Amino acid sequence: MHDGAGILLDLFLVFLLARIGGEILVRLKQPSVIGELLVGIVIGPHALGLVQEGEVLRSIAEVGVVFLLFEAGLENRFSDLRKVGRTAGAVAVSGVIVPFVLGVLLLLALGHAANESAFMGAALVATSVGVTARVFGDLRMLREAQAQVVLAAAVIDDVLGLLVLAVVTGLAAGGLELGQFALLLGEAAFFLVFVTLVGSRLMRRHGPLFDRIRVSDGPFVVAVTVCLGLSALATQIGLAAIVGAFLAGMVFAETREHFAMERRIEPVTHFLTPFFFVLTGMAVDPRFLVDPAIVGLGTAVLALAMLSKFAPCSLAARKLGRSRAIMVGIGMIPRAEVGIIVASIGLREGVLGEDLYGVVVLMSVLTTLVTPPLLRVVAARGREPEVAPELAGRGVTEP
Amino acid sequence: MHDGAGILLDLFLVFLLARIGGEILVRLKQPSVIGELLVGIVIGPHALGLVQEGEVLRSIAEVGVVFLLFEAGLENRFSDLRKVGRTAGAVAVSGVIVPFVLGVLLLLALGHAANESAFMGAALVATSVGVTARVFGDLRMLREAQAQVVLAAAVIDDVLGLLVLAVVTGLAAGGLELGQFALLLGEAAFFLVFVTLVGSRLMRRHGPLFDRIRVSDGPFVVAVTVCLGLSALATQIGLAAIVGAFLAGMVFAETREHFAMERRIEPVTHFLTPFFFVLTGMAVDPRFLVDPAIVGLGTAVLALAMLSKFAPCSLAARKLGRSRAIMVGIGMIPRAEVGIIVASIGLREGVLGEDLYGVVVLMSVLTTLVTPPLLRVVAARGREPEVAPELAGRGVTEP
Repeated sequence: MHDGAGILLDLFLVFLLARIGGEILVRLKQPSVIGELLVGIVIGPHALGLVQEGEVLRSIAEVGVVFLLFEAGLENRFSDLRKVGRTAGAVAVSGVIVPFVLGVLLLLALGHAANESAFMGAALVATSVGVTARVFGDLRMLREAQAQVVLAAAVIDDVLGLLVLAVVTGLAAGGLELGQFALLLGEAAFFLVFVTLVGSRLMRRHGPLFDRIRVSDGPFVVAVTVCLGLSALATQIGLAAIVGAFLAGMVFAETREHFAMERRIEPVTHFLTPFFFVLTGMAVDPRFLVDPAIVGLGTAVLALAMLSKFAPCSLAARKLGRSRAIMVGIGMIPRAEVGIIVASIGLREGVLGEDLYGVVVLMSVLTTLVTPPLLRVVAARGREPEVAPELAGRGVTEP
Repeated sequence: MHDGAGILLDLFLVFLLARIGGEILVRLKQPSVIGELLVGIVIGPHALGLVQEGEVLRSIAEVGVVFLLFEAGLENRFSDLRKVGRTAGAVAVSGVIVPFVLGVLLLLALGHAANESAFMGAALVATSVGVTARVFGDLRMLREAQAQVVLAAAVIDDVLGLLVLAVVTGLAAGGLELGQFALLLGEAAFFLVFVTLVGSRLMRRHGPLFDRIRVSDGPFVVAVTVCLGLSALATQIGLAAIVGAFLAGMVFAETREHFAMERRIEPVTHFLTPFFFVLTGMAVDPRFLVDPAIVGLGTAVLALAMLSKFAPCSLAARKLGRSRAIMVGIGMIPRAEVGIIVASIGLREGVLGEDLYGVVVLMSVLTTLVTPPLLRVVAARGREPEVAPELAGRGVTEP
């Protein structure tokens, strides 16, 4: 008698299994997000095929990661981020140049064409901090310097990555149009400046705006509207939706209501985010892991992907202290959907072959999978020795 | 550089306009849901065409109404509903028989074929209490007898409507298979009994279940999982997803955590529900309102649709007192998406013509549009005189 049976069943299965996977990992003292990623691999079309990735699930996943980054933005006031701005800038720039140059050189050295090598470089530039934000959130570290640096750097990184992709695609298509490139640059710059400066100031001055809204749950409604609006606007410009969402969150972080808002956004995030991580896992074909042709190149690219972000980014953040700098370096590693999207553009343009596409997908997912456990290890270690040894040396006993 | 641009823009537009429409109606002292329905008509494909109803929006709308009815269920304990069970049963049964018989007779009198008349009767049987639940919620009346009767009656009504549709479809297809009919009946009965009795008992006994879950926000996660699961199961049997969602809510209403759960579910509902009402509005072609062929029959069917639910249902609920009985009668009027779904099955089976389909769509949406203002008027009137006159007669002055 009624419609919509299929999608509710899919949503139920994905949500149930994601939460079971999460619960198991939490009991193993690992972040639940890994459980969600692994569930995705297992139920995905390449393995059990329990759930097919359709347009609906993909959209819900997209909205989920948008809300996740909005929530992360809510915990970061623009005024706080300015303090880490210089470090974040250095992290972002070095985390764009090093992976791009090394990626291009590796592929050229292996005998690939220039265009192909350039696309691989661009795919290695991409950063997707959804998983990092989630782990920092689980660890209640979102307001600490390492989280702020990673989140701010990811925004800058995304803008730079966009420009790199524009250049690479332009060159592959036979030539770069300078006019279009300048327009893109201008749009991105305008977006960032307008949102952060004007938006934040508007919020500080017109905080009581919310009192004028009659519809129930006014602040929440306004926040969701602005979050969706800036995310959509970001995609229109060519930036990642999550950049818009994060900036929207930062705008509302300035309001008196930001804490209450966070409490209201949280359930939406808890409902929608697992779909994003399960779908990210679903993109992995486990057969890649045994195909020698892909495993060889894949291992090299994966190692490069990790080191080329970790080394320069943690170096650029060394002022924060050793364990925090290491967390920044790790936090910048995951490529997730952004790397896959770059690779799919290369595939569509006929520049990347199926094998290199497979390598990028594998690299994107594995960099996302390794990040949470690595971050946890460093976080657990960082917490004990940083204060305890000094105190211990002075004969003070910590409870 | 990134995907998902289109859907975020659609979500933003629909959410923004829905909320603006809602805000305007609230300022006019009307329920915001009417604003959302009207926005749907205006931006829909038949008018401005700002937004196209795609699979994604439809699914999000479906999830939205599922959460809305889950929230309504959370406010209704099964033990409370049992008190109104007899009234609700009488309301449901009379609200199925009268519209069906009158609908069939009207169409036969106008010279339509028996099959066509039977489908129109089945479409008139359908009840969709989403809008009623929303208005009762806005009025903070969800725990009052009239809301409980309407919600319980809607569940029974949906089961009976399903059986009517099965008979009508079977006859149209050339004969009813008794075996299939019995199976359907058994499944529906098992679902209702199992969920309400076993589920509620399980919850009362194993309330501390939630304490054993380690993943953060455990009760919320379990609630969402069960809500999605029972909704999906309901659709598998052939019931409306919202019946499953409402029953899931009732199951959790027995737990100690039900109030906290409601606070967590609310933001999800506030985010998703507007999509449902905007999409319901989008189904209306405003040209129907000026097409004489449709307007003539449409007016007759609309009048029949309203009276054939209002009269028997308010009569069956007369024990609740005059103004509450009237609210029950009005609350059962909206057909919304359920009527449209029945009509679309008729269209697909080749039984209903395009014109009759248009009439059912018009009737379904208009019965949904008129309900909120009617309910508000009765609620506003009912509040004053019910106690005041007696007290006034005794010379007591009310503050």
